[in-house]
Amino acid sequence: MGRWEPNARGRLAQAAFELYGERGYEQTTVAEIAKRAGLTERTFFRHFADKREVLFAGSEILQESLVRAVVDAHESAAPIDAVTAALETVGSVLMDREFSRRRQKVIDSTAELRERELIKLAALASAVADALRRRGVPDLAASLTAEAGVAVFKVAFERWIAGTDEKDLSELIREAIDELKAVTAG
Amino acid sequence: MGRWEPNARGRLAQAAFELYGERGYEQTTVAEIAKRAGLTERTFFRHFADKREVLFAGSEILQESLVRAVVDAHESAAPIDAVTAALETVGSVLMDREFSRRRQKVIDSTAELRERELIKLAALASAVADALRRRGVPDLAASLTAEAGVAVFKVAFERWIAGTDEKDLSELIREAIDELKAVTAG
Repeated sequence: MGRWEPNARGRLAQAAFELYGERGYEQTTVAEIAKRAGLTERTFFRHFADKREVLFAGSEILQESLVRAVVDAHESAAPIDAVTAALETVGSVLMDREFSRRRQKVIDSTAELRERELIKLAALASAVADALRRRGVPDLAASLTAEAGVAVFKVAFERWIAGTDEKDLSELIREAIDELKAVTAG
Repeated sequence: MGRWEPNARGRLAQAAFELYGERGYEQTTVAEIAKRAGLTERTFFRHFADKREVLFAGSEILQESLVRAVVDAHESAAPIDAVTAALETVGSVLMDREFSRRRQKVIDSTAELRERELIKLAALASAVADALRRRGVPDLAASLTAEAGVAVFKVAFERWIAGTDEKDLSELIREAIDELKAVTAG
């Protein structure tokens, strides 16, 4: 093998999600995923470290985008505004609610995956705090702004995938930030 | 056996912490913990589900105390003030920084324990959000206030165990809340 396969990564992800939904995450093997995608196991491992990473590949991209947006925010922007703007940008990229919902259903079904998700969120908060420190934000303010931002993202994301209305994720992020400002104002 | 052992729980916890520090968490068995405490394995399992729970038994008490304090806060208290007061009360009970530091060192050494800690923090945020809802706080405000409260606790706790100065945990919680209010005010 080794020849170029058109959109191998996307086909593997699609196959994995189908199988996780049909037979459950734990019961699905990499061999089955590759077969469903019409590819080899070797191709699978060129794109993903293991079957768990198919579910979390997007988290890396999310983290990179968020960090870049925080670093690139206008230098006059207050830390919370830099994080808010970054979250809204990321939120506007996540469009496919049905996909996110199916992914979450797989994650919620397995303790190992829920733990992995919490680790990714903790890493996200750390990375955002580092990005703020690079902007010169003092340590305590950087940590709290990052934790608050991740909390806003988490709550907005849960509302988005649970919701039936037409609000998009970046709108829900905006609402959550406004609500956080209101509740912390007392 | 089955006879009453004076302070069996405390002796088991003490023995476990010593052994985790000396030879590492993964290398320590329940049999060794019981032996060091001068008790039987059976007594160990009357007090703890497994060797991991020795490290997290305090989390249950923390969660119960926090929820009770939120539920019992004066009915006129704003959600954030109910959570702040609850955190400060809990913070004033956690006095033994050296113990907390040794515990954290064990947790940080093992991925499984770090994951367990994140799960406990997520459960804590859920429980606090539920307590706020029982006070009549609307859903979104309850979730965000609880997440913000847990973020404040997490950041203050990290500063407390990393710190060398004489500030106690409840003082650091107060500083973190004030800082969160300042950063969200923009």
